[in-house]
Amino acid sequence: MHELVERLYPLCRSITGDGVRRTLEIIGELVPLDVHEVPTGTQVLDWNVPKEWNIRDAYVKDPTGAKVVDFAESNLHVVGYSVPVSARMPLAELRGHLHTLPDQPGLIPYRTSYYAEDWGFCLRHETLESLRDGEYEVVVDSTLADGHLTYAEHVVPGRTSEEVLISCHTCHPSLANDNLAGIAVATQLARRLATTSPRYTYRFLFAPGTIGSITWLARNRDTVERIRHGLVLACAGDGGGLTYKRSRRGDTQIDRAVGHVLRTSGRPHRTVDFSPYGYDERQYCSPGFDLPVGCLTRSTYAGYPEYHTSGDNPAFVLPESLEDTLETCWEVTRVLEEDRRVLNLSPYGEPQLGRRGLYGALGGRSDTKQAQLAMLWVLNLSDGTRTLLDVAERACLPFRAVAEAAQSLEDAGLVREWNP
Amino acid sequence: MHELVERLYPLCRSITGDGVRRTLEIIGELVPLDVHEVPTGTQVLDWNVPKEWNIRDAYVKDPTGAKVVDFAESNLHVVGYSVPVSARMPLAELRGHLHTLPDQPGLIPYRTSYYAEDWGFCLRHETLESLRDGEYEVVVDSTLADGHLTYAEHVVPGRTSEEVLISCHTCHPSLANDNLAGIAVATQLARRLATTSPRYTYRFLFAPGTIGSITWLARNRDTVERIRHGLVLACAGDGGGLTYKRSRRGDTQIDRAVGHVLRTSGRPHRTVDFSPYGYDERQYCSPGFDLPVGCLTRSTYAGYPEYHTSGDNPAFVLPESLEDTLETCWEVTRVLEEDRRVLNLSPYGEPQLGRRGLYGALGGRSDTKQAQLAMLWVLNLSDGTRTLLDVAERACLPFRAVAEAAQSLEDAGLVREWNP
Amino acid sequence: MHELVERLYPLCRSITGDGVRRTLEIIGELVPLDVHEVPTGTQVLDWNVPKEWNIRDAYVKDPTGAKVVDFAESNLHVVGYSVPVSARMPLAELRGHLHTLPDQPGLIPYRTSYYAEDWGFCLRHETLESLRDGEYEVVVDSTLADGHLTYAEHVVPGRTSEEVLISCHTCHPSLANDNLAGIAVATQLARRLATTSPRYTYRFLFAPGTIGSITWLARNRDTVERIRHGLVLACAGDGGGLTYKRSRRGDTQIDRAVGHVLRTSGRPHRTVDFSPYGYDERQYCSPGFDLPVGCLTRSTYAGYPEYHTSGDNPAFVLPESLEDTLETCWEVTRVLEEDRRVLNLSPYGEPQLGRRGLYGALGGRSDTKQAQLAMLWVLNLSDGTRTLLDVAERACLPFRAVAEAAQSLEDAGLVREWNP
Repeated sequence: MHELVERLYPLCRSITGDGVRRTLEIIGELVPLDVHEVPTGTQVLDWNVPKEWNIRDAYVKDPTGAKVVDFAESNLHVVGYSVPVSARMPLAELRGHLHTLPDQPGLIPYRTSYYAEDWGFCLRHETLESLRDGEYEVVVDSTLADGHLTYAEHVVPGRTSEEVLISCHTCHPSLANDNLAGIAVATQLARRLATTSPRYTYRFLFAPGTIGSITWLARNRDTVERIRHGLVLACAGDGGGLTYKRSRRGDTQIDRAVGHVLRTSGRPHRTVDFSPYGYDERQYCSPGFDLPVGCLTRSTYAGYPEYHTSGDNPAFVLPESLEDTLETCWEVTRVLEEDRRVLNLSPYGEPQLGRRGLYGALGGRSDTKQAQLAMLWVLNLSDGTRTLLDVAERACLPFRAVAEAAQSLEDAGLVREWNP
Repeated sequence: MHELVERLYPLCRSITGDGVRRTLEIIGELVPLDVHEVPTGTQVLDWNVPKEWNIRDAYVKDPTGAKVVDFAESNLHVVGYSVPVSARMPLAELRGHLHTLPDQPGLIPYRTSYYAEDWGFCLRHETLESLRDGEYEVVVDSTLADGHLTYAEHVVPGRTSEEVLISCHTCHPSLANDNLAGIAVATQLARRLATTSPRYTYRFLFAPGTIGSITWLARNRDTVERIRHGLVLACAGDGGGLTYKRSRRGDTQIDRAVGHVLRTSGRPHRTVDFSPYGYDERQYCSPGFDLPVGCLTRSTYAGYPEYHTSGDNPAFVLPESLEDTLETCWEVTRVLEEDRRVLNLSPYGEPQLGRRGLYGALGGRSDTKQAQLAMLWVLNLSDGTRTLLDVAERACLPFRAVAEAAQSLEDAGLVREWNP
Repeated sequence: MHELVERLYPLCRSITGDGVRRTLEIIGELVPLDVHEVPTGTQVLDWNVPKEWNIRDAYVKDPTGAKVVDFAESNLHVVGYSVPVSARMPLAELRGHLHTLPDQPGLIPYRTSYYAEDWGFCLRHETLESLRDGEYEVVVDSTLADGHLTYAEHVVPGRTSEEVLISCHTCHPSLANDNLAGIAVATQLARRLATTSPRYTYRFLFAPGTIGSITWLARNRDTVERIRHGLVLACAGDGGGLTYKRSRRGDTQIDRAVGHVLRTSGRPHRTVDFSPYGYDERQYCSPGFDLPVGCLTRSTYAGYPEYHTSGDNPAFVLPESLEDTLETCWEVTRVLEEDRRVLNLSPYGEPQLGRRGLYGALGGRSDTKQAQLAMLWVLNLSDGTRTLLDVAERACLPFRAVAEAAQSLEDAGLVREWNP
């Protein structure tokens, strides 16, 4: 996964353009993608698909002709969606187009101007401090013209048409944790799910933030009801603990599944309520759709100093963090796939487990194993009102242990699958 | 407000009598009052209006003829409703009629005997200690006879007949925080509301504790259903933080509004559940009426050492505390007046706020302003199930910010008022 | 109660056999018992009544002929339900039949093998360590043959056929806290209840753990619906604080009554949710029956180092702990017996308590007595929706005070019993 992050890092992505297409080509080498091109001007919900932006070069030369800001060094140097410019101007005038972080003088900020035609440069504050007065040359060799917005889908077919949506944004240029890490985890999760025969159909969406999910929602408005659970993956690789942001409804199966996996994982983690600010869950959880989609990150949106700066580079993303996020996603899919309701067929008193080889023969010991406790919990609570996840939550046992106990009891004929 | 407290302080109030009438005259100079006189013996709910009590003088002279206890020095010296007496008796016999605070020897307690005919004096315990044996002269020049119970109402008319009740008791003699402070805050709140054109009709009640509110309830039994929200104001001026005691129902709009204002004010405060002991909320929240009336105080009923003693004097009431209580009441009325339900007219995805000048043009920054967050919250939660107060509570934002965001969105045509 | 513990301690009890019969004879000297004998092989729910086990002697002799393990010294030395054996074998072979506690080398463990025919000895680990290699003689003089399972009931008749079940297990050999203490408390509680004319019929069950309650449930399947409340009593005499384990439903009257008594007792205590592991509540709370039965202990099941070892002897049981558990049970029965619903007949405003001699005449004091507060709470909350226990819980007052206040108010004609 970290290799993918490194490989995608140099590309200049935005909400449209060839950087996104190139990114999707590379992802497509790992999982087959269905790429969609949506023309500029297309009405999508309350929005319109913007013009397509591409850039070849950009720089600022000081009075001596030295390049003091250079797109070739980092694509963060140019404000996203900067219109073409070729001009000479005094520093005083240029300053209005320069963005820095005075509190983090060594870092380049990330800025965009998608919907207001403008141009600008982002640079280290220490560089700005070093600039001398005089006439500067400014060049932005970009095009902003009718074209397309590009996004892609990958589907792992399931035994049912009910879908799990995994969504990650593809619009950020050289920023590694946000969101190449999310892209890498999603890609690996898709490959791992493809080795199974899942109950759910898993739809992976790679699209630009906000306008991309809005475009997808507009074009799939009649089929979104298929989505039973969903996760937005972002900031999936930094060194912080995992954070789960619940869906707008707050108590959906995905909220409960992720919450359970995190609680029983022993990992440091946080779960927070939904708020209408962050990533594409903002769109999926808008009141008209109100989809059961949460957001899984490590450090949160705008929650770390390197966020949206040149400090968010491949070195900031840890291979073990990517693995940990992937494993968590995998465990969550296990709960979604395996949760079910069983019915205790011997509900009057406890059935004699020992006779069936399910219970230790020697009595009196005070150390009962988790497997035996899990069986007792499944028997006691499986009256048709509770699922295995309900049992696991009530018993404070890992879902895995409860699911295995239910299987043992089913094999012994003590419970049967129950679908009201 | 503090001037009013000082001016009313010397008057000898009780649950009936000329002290109450004089108090209402002075309040009437600030807000027009509708004064009611209810004859002795009138049946009011389970009670009867008692005889009217008036007192001119009272003292205790020691064997040397020196006045050791003198009504002229403090009206707390006489037990409220003491019957007339003129007698000579040894100290031993007199002691049975003397009330002191051994733990607070320098303070005069406040005692009454409204419903059991008796007489008595309250004095500093240190004074009692200094009394020598011998024959004492006791005089209480009072009258207890058929008359009237006096209370007053002031109404600020609103655009609807739904009412907000503000109630404070007028029966305490020279006690400043309890309850001249409540009277002063209520009077100022009435004057401030009169400068607006409120949605609710605000009814201010100045009446003696318990028997006064019972009398008012008895005489307004058929119209109390007009009362949508209410507050009992008492102990409104001491140096302690604000305390809100919820209504019996506990989750009414007034409970939520006061709770929200206190939570978002940054002020130290407490909110406590209803209990059937305290001020006139006892009557308003009796199960037959069960009105949505809470009680706002600073230090609580019987919750400070000076309570019901000569220590509760004008110096114990701080002008800034009176201001703070008034401001809190004002903010509460803002919530009551401005809370409403709006409907998001663009619920599928987020509407494009930037196009409408409601969102910053430069993207990528991580410092989003409260105003923008408030708009996102209003849009996300305004599905017809929530009011602006619901939104403010869920978003942990001040009601003010949410109400302004709703107005901006309404002006932009993105939401509309919604009345199911 | 401690004398009973000491008297019963030496008997070798098990889930069947003469030790149980002798135990019931002794209990029968204190309260009349209805003893039931259920034949081996009888089907009881999912189980069958096992063979009856009796033992006369058992020992292990070392190569020198010295008895190194002797049933006569402690009946814990033999694994419960050991089949007869008379053999000579080397220590290496014998070891497979020896059970010790390496972490508690000075204590004899308690072990059984009810449902897998086997034999074994339990001994101090330090004894095991001292054994020298060589040929050992092993004798278990027991019989395992068709017979009966024995349990007993004692009933304190009530004014109604609604029952309260008090259940304690009788299957443990020389273990004092688990469960001779529970037996002793149950016996005393029965004697104390017999001095009253209770509303409920109290059924005391003395039966072996698991198979005993299963047998009782099987034979009373059609009448268990009479059980309105129940308690399993165990570990009732150690020095730890009380622990209440709620019923499966978690919010039944017994759960609320015990919780209230513990909360208002000032005693250190714990209340924990139901789990399907512990004593016979496992059977009563199996989903088919789901009876409102909780479990009251001091230290919990498997919750103390002496648990199921020779350390659980009469010295481990404290007379004052037995008294404290008994008193708690008694207070719980008071709540069950006296809880009721009253209706405030004067719900508009507070009735004038003073006129009826229910309120102090002298006003102004800030120290109101609990009795008066309790009356105000009963009046305020008795609108037909709440029982006296509801009132006590809401008011944070002891049930006793609330019940007495309700009686005073009923005597004054201010409330009446209310049965919807």
